[in-house]
Amino acid sequence: MARWLKPSLNWLLPLTPAVIALRYLAPESHVPLFVLAGIAIIPLAGWMGKATEHLADRTGEALGGLLNATFGNMAELIIGIMALREGLTEVVKASLTGSILGNALLVLGASMLGGGLKYRTQTFNAAGARSMATALTLAAIALVAPAVYHQLAGEPGAAREGALSLEISVVLLVTYALSLLFSLHTHQPLFTREAAESRPEPAHDMWSVRKAMAILVGATAVVSWLAEILVRSVEPAALELGMTEVFIGVVIVAIVGNAAEHSTAILMALDDRMDLSMGIAIGSSVQIALFAAPVLVLLSYAIGPAPMDLVFTPAEVVAVAVAVVIVGQVAEDGQSHWLEGVQLLAVYAILALMFYFLPESAITVE
Amino acid sequence: MARWLKPSLNWLLPLTPAVIALRYLAPESHVPLFVLAGIAIIPLAGWMGKATEHLADRTGEALGGLLNATFGNMAELIIGIMALREGLTEVVKASLTGSILGNALLVLGASMLGGGLKYRTQTFNAAGARSMATALTLAAIALVAPAVYHQLAGEPGAAREGALSLEISVVLLVTYALSLLFSLHTHQPLFTREAAESRPEPAHDMWSVRKAMAILVGATAVVSWLAEILVRSVEPAALELGMTEVFIGVVIVAIVGNAAEHSTAILMALDDRMDLSMGIAIGSSVQIALFAAPVLVLLSYAIGPAPMDLVFTPAEVVAVAVAVVIVGQVAEDGQSHWLEGVQLLAVYAILALMFYFLPESAITVE
Amino acid sequence: MARWLKPSLNWLLPLTPAVIALRYLAPESHVPLFVLAGIAIIPLAGWMGKATEHLADRTGEALGGLLNATFGNMAELIIGIMALREGLTEVVKASLTGSILGNALLVLGASMLGGGLKYRTQTFNAAGARSMATALTLAAIALVAPAVYHQLAGEPGAAREGALSLEISVVLLVTYALSLLFSLHTHQPLFTREAAESRPEPAHDMWSVRKAMAILVGATAVVSWLAEILVRSVEPAALELGMTEVFIGVVIVAIVGNAAEHSTAILMALDDRMDLSMGIAIGSSVQIALFAAPVLVLLSYAIGPAPMDLVFTPAEVVAVAVAVVIVGQVAEDGQSHWLEGVQLLAVYAILALMFYFLPESAITVE
Repeated sequence: MARWLKPSLNWLLPLTPAVIALRYLAPESHVPLFVLAGIAIIPLAGWMGKATEHLADRTGEALGGLLNATFGNMAELIIGIMALREGLTEVVKASLTGSILGNALLVLGASMLGGGLKYRTQTFNAAGARSMATALTLAAIALVAPAVYHQLAGEPGAAREGALSLEISVVLLVTYALSLLFSLHTHQPLFTREAAESRPEPAHDMWSVRKAMAILVGATAVVSWLAEILVRSVEPAALELGMTEVFIGVVIVAIVGNAAEHSTAILMALDDRMDLSMGIAIGSSVQIALFAAPVLVLLSYAIGPAPMDLVFTPAEVVAVAVAVVIVGQVAEDGQSHWLEGVQLLAVYAILALMFYFLPESAITVE
Repeated sequence: MARWLKPSLNWLLPLTPAVIALRYLAPESHVPLFVLAGIAIIPLAGWMGKATEHLADRTGEALGGLLNATFGNMAELIIGIMALREGLTEVVKASLTGSILGNALLVLGASMLGGGLKYRTQTFNAAGARSMATALTLAAIALVAPAVYHQLAGEPGAAREGALSLEISVVLLVTYALSLLFSLHTHQPLFTREAAESRPEPAHDMWSVRKAMAILVGATAVVSWLAEILVRSVEPAALELGMTEVFIGVVIVAIVGNAAEHSTAILMALDDRMDLSMGIAIGSSVQIALFAAPVLVLLSYAIGPAPMDLVFTPAEVVAVAVAVVIVGQVAEDGQSHWLEGVQLLAVYAILALMFYFLPESAITVE
Repeated sequence: MARWLKPSLNWLLPLTPAVIALRYLAPESHVPLFVLAGIAIIPLAGWMGKATEHLADRTGEALGGLLNATFGNMAELIIGIMALREGLTEVVKASLTGSILGNALLVLGASMLGGGLKYRTQTFNAAGARSMATALTLAAIALVAPAVYHQLAGEPGAAREGALSLEISVVLLVTYALSLLFSLHTHQPLFTREAAESRPEPAHDMWSVRKAMAILVGATAVVSWLAEILVRSVEPAALELGMTEVFIGVVIVAIVGNAAEHSTAILMALDDRMDLSMGIAIGSSVQIALFAAPVLVLLSYAIGPAPMDLVFTPAEVVAVAVAVVIVGQVAEDGQSHWLEGVQLLAVYAILALMFYFLPESAITVE
């Protein structure tokens, strides 16, 4: 895979110490930090993709996809925890929504477009994709319910929003645990294609699981660090560019925070491994909604100055709902082509435009 | 089927006269009436399941499923008529919503979970399931439209809500009649699997259609009676337990009122007859929305102190809409496994939590 | 095909000059103009159907469907431009919504019902149908986003609604151009069935492409003219009959403006060519949303007294959303039968009733 990428991208690796140096030497130069950190992530994400691919060759695509989603989302979880500590619950929620939209629309769309330009029609395990799409629907319902409650209950119900969010979080975590049991244990073969067996032996020499894991963990750690620098610089940088905080949370942070998944999923699609690509894209959305969101709610009681609830803004609710519907349509047939990628990207663009134009006053949960 | 159930469950049959006695001797002991009537229903529902199975062996699974749904919903229709007589239109509407949600999420979820724990993957006729899912979508649209009208038309449109509900009811009844014509006459084989023919001859000796019908009708009558006692006791009982009227209508009444379908659908799933199980679960939801709801609207002009419309509360509209989307996703592929059951149950739990927390003021149609 | 139609329908052709005469001799006789123009369209639409069929025999069903949709919608585009010139942006938007609903629900429903009464089960290319359904979902999201923005942004965001609509229009047009590239060039075979090759040679002697094109263009021109007379007479005529302007825009104009597609799609369904029928019905909806709507937005800056935005009323948003969901369900399985036609028509009837009852005050975007 992508042997042609290696020579060029590794030249970007020295950017990482440069970003770190800049971070400490000129912490106020937000725009350069933002741009450089973003570029510095790319080669590391490439290494993560390579390591994941080697692992996937050894562990099966489902587990490989899960590993990838976990490592990608760990960065987001860490960022979320830090934001919670500072009481920025609205920013955390916006970045959760943004990550769900970014993975399900932007990452999946770019993967289907990229893969579709190279291969006429790409196939994936429809049963596995449908299962993820159903999990995403469940997740969307869980994130919609508190917002509906908030709109309907008004003043008299406000006191119980925390309790409702807390109990929904427990439902989500139980469902997530059972989903892992399902995909990794009882129904693992559902997530691997029969066709996978006919795949020719990969030409490159395989890394050991140990080496692949070490590189994956190491690259993830550095990417997390860079992503954090990015996120911290993105807000002041974007303000210099005249964007609202909401647009940053939902769109910019999500693009940046999912850069690792983004590049890995596209590389997998370019290698015609759509099962892995979709496992990363949709799987990350599911994992954020079913795992990161409830964990952050629970953690907010321990570490935050104020507890976080799951009451999202109406714009976020509509965006997640329409994303779920179109992802369900795209995932159901086990085939993808480039136009589906274009359609997902068009939906992402429309939603991003909506968030871009929305005034600050319209987004906060009143 | 379930030969192991018979010895234990039949011991519960004497509860029925006990409940009836209690009903007349201590009509105010709501909590005991509630608990005992609920338990007393179980063996009768077992007999209904047995009778339905025998009928289904003779008439085909589609007709068997229809019979079951009819007998199960007849109880609800009777309860609805009685509530209409007393002018409790909001309670009737809440129990309609609750029955739709209960059948489509709780009963189907429990069936898929139960069956899925026993069988790795269960298959069903995807064309029939999709047809029912489409009917459910139609039903949801019919129940959403008057609520949208109510929100938009406001004061000037209030006078015409009754007429709109009445005409939508006529559309629903015509569609329902045509659906019966379709599933029972013109396209009956669509609802039976080819694989059904390869089913081994059932070992137990078959009941005659007459005997099965007699037991089905008799058990249904007693279950209806018990369900009514349950429903009448459930409100004061629940108030003692500190629940709101809305939660009772949407959640408790629905669980209780669908106990028969619930147990039969699960028993069918445990017997790997998912077509029958889904026919009961989704079919009951469809039948309530396409048949019971419009019939009750029409009857309300004849028997009620006030006519009933189809204006549901926003919480009910959202709940039905999300239920339809996830049921459509689960039904479309002709396969089920235990995680799909868990996901449906999780959605039910989230919606139930939302209704539980909603204050009374937020649910009534203002 | 439809050789039995020719003798009777062609007797209606002399109605065309009669309508044109009436238009100039008695321009105020709105009800007769409305009725006669509607009837006069029928034989011309029959000729369009014949010409399209001949073209489709030569060019493949996908291109034939596209030609048909283009010619049918060209009339609507012309009507839209004229209405824009007079500043009737709300009427234009209502007719866009109505055309989407009319094609996706009424035309498709009537086709599936008509074809289903003649053939037990009709099959179509599921991949092509799904692709159109996904495009329709994308279109619905694009039309929903500005309305959501409008509801949320309120006063402070009103100034930017035009810019949001403009940018979404650009996204839609780019997507539409790429969709054409996809369906006509890179993935053209996706939209034609393998089974099409086994179709027996058509018995009637084929028209040349030139002759078919000439008749198609000529008939389209006259139908456009008649449709315009219809549309101009329909408002005063309907007011005489006591209907609101909104109902006229969404329901009556849509039925009339899509008469050509309507009859052609049904004739194709009766000839068991469901791919062509669905290409006309869903394809027209997609084309209106992805092509006509953004073109009219862009043109409104050039030709109108006031620019048009894409802020639809909440009733329209809900109607389009539910239409998209049920069309997606019906299209996904590659099969249709008469009940699906009934269900689509029932949804159309329910939405039409809702628009009929809605008071004028509730529909305008405040």
